[in-house]
Amino acid sequence: MVRSQTMQRLKVQLAYDGTLFSGFQVQVNARTVQEEIEKSLMKIHQQAIRIYASGRTDSGVHARAQVMHFDSPLDLTESNWQRALQTTLPNDISIEKVEKVPQDFHARKDALDKTYRYIIRFSDDYDVFNRNYEWHVRQRLDIKEMREAASQIQGTHDFTAFSASKTNVKGDKTRTIHNIELHESDEHVVVEVTGDGFLTHMVRIIVGTLVDIGSKRKNLQCIQEAFETNDRRVLGQTAPPQGLFLWKVNY
Amino acid sequence: MVRSQTMQRLKVQLAYDGTLFSGFQVQVNARTVQEEIEKSLMKIHQQAIRIYASGRTDSGVHARAQVMHFDSPLDLTESNWQRALQTTLPNDISIEKVEKVPQDFHARKDALDKTYRYIIRFSDDYDVFNRNYEWHVRQRLDIKEMREAASQIQGTHDFTAFSASKTNVKGDKTRTIHNIELHESDEHVVVEVTGDGFLTHMVRIIVGTLVDIGSKRKNLQCIQEAFETNDRRVLGQTAPPQGLFLWKVNY
Repeated sequence: MVRSQTMQRLKVQLAYDGTLFSGFQVQVNARTVQEEIEKSLMKIHQQAIRIYASGRTDSGVHARAQVMHFDSPLDLTESNWQRALQTTLPNDISIEKVEKVPQDFHARKDALDKTYRYIIRFSDDYDVFNRNYEWHVRQRLDIKEMREAASQIQGTHDFTAFSASKTNVKGDKTRTIHNIELHESDEHVVVEVTGDGFLTHMVRIIVGTLVDIGSKRKNLQCIQEAFETNDRRVLGQTAPPQGLFLWKVNY
Repeated sequence: MVRSQTMQRLKVQLAYDGTLFSGFQVQVNARTVQEEIEKSLMKIHQQAIRIYASGRTDSGVHARAQVMHFDSPLDLTESNWQRALQTTLPNDISIEKVEKVPQDFHARKDALDKTYRYIIRFSDDYDVFNRNYEWHVRQRLDIKEMREAASQIQGTHDFTAFSASKTNVKGDKTRTIHNIELHESDEHVVVEVTGDGFLTHMVRIIVGTLVDIGSKRKNLQCIQEAFETNDRRVLGQTAPPQGLFLWKVNY
């Protein structure tokens, strides 16, 4: 491989199965996506290369299309980059696309908004083959009521009540949710949430609250109350991680 | 729970994700489906209960509808049996149905035939979320040629060449394959095989050989040669376990 004088910035779109990862971000004594990718880059470069993702994902959460960037002194084609990464990575990470981008591209700072999908299975039947990729709730759900709640969450709000108390986010917790859609099929409801930024556990608290409203354990009023009081406790449960997919990052 | 004087025989239909199992049958120092079910029955009965399945499955092979039976002195309804088993089992085993059956029902001996499905992904794209549930072959496959090969495998033959050399099956290796069908979609070929009995690795050798014929690494003549010589080496590869599902046991 040729080492060029200048550094090339690479934008990478990747998918991962979050089941066996303790989330994206490197931490001590835990298997993380970032660690596996940086190990792969170390093998390719024989030197440490740091990656920057659009954001982290929690333990057990999946990505269909996470985006990251890194800088390399190596001069490879985009398809050779894809191959080099894929062959050195474990099989629960998939490199979907590699693009050479200008030096000022930044995977996190340039992201305009992100779309998450959350998959809820509401039929009585347990699906053993999808247990790591959906949340199985056995209640009947009132989808109309859930759609009404979703429409109240859309827009620009202080989302303090919708974040884990252990959140790392400091400062302003105002975010804009552009859109929440519920797609219903025979056995599933898919909640699709697009917004300009997300606090820790925010999508999972939105989904858990929608399910609690759909199953009548909470009523619609809790949404307005949460925005008024900033109190996490007025909302519903935090949906489990395995139903959540980082679906798309828009630039 | 009431212990009745007599034993009740129970027929159980179950699904399991084979990924984290070393196959069905109990073995030392390995996690198996049988062991988990017998541990669950031990919890329910406070005594050892032996189960009898329609047959074993290999390490990594899945079941959509395995069937087993056992005898119990406990007097539970069918739905309470289902609940008692499900709540004491790990989440990669799913109890689909429990039926009280006459004392002479036998899950293995009464099985008329079995259907397996094998899922092959032939597109270039790797699907990280289905990596444990399909075989990703990157070649273009000649489905017409594979169908021709499948039609030659159908029927009653000595299947010695189609079994692992380490097979436990002694004696006659004549089996009848009633039907092999290939279902094609955009990114997948599903091979469905129904027969009255299967030798060790038989479905995986059939599928591996079909794929080698479809990708021109083997030619059609190898099937007839295998039946004439009983030589495993004239056939194709053994397909990996994760694409294989025990789909249905017919009584």
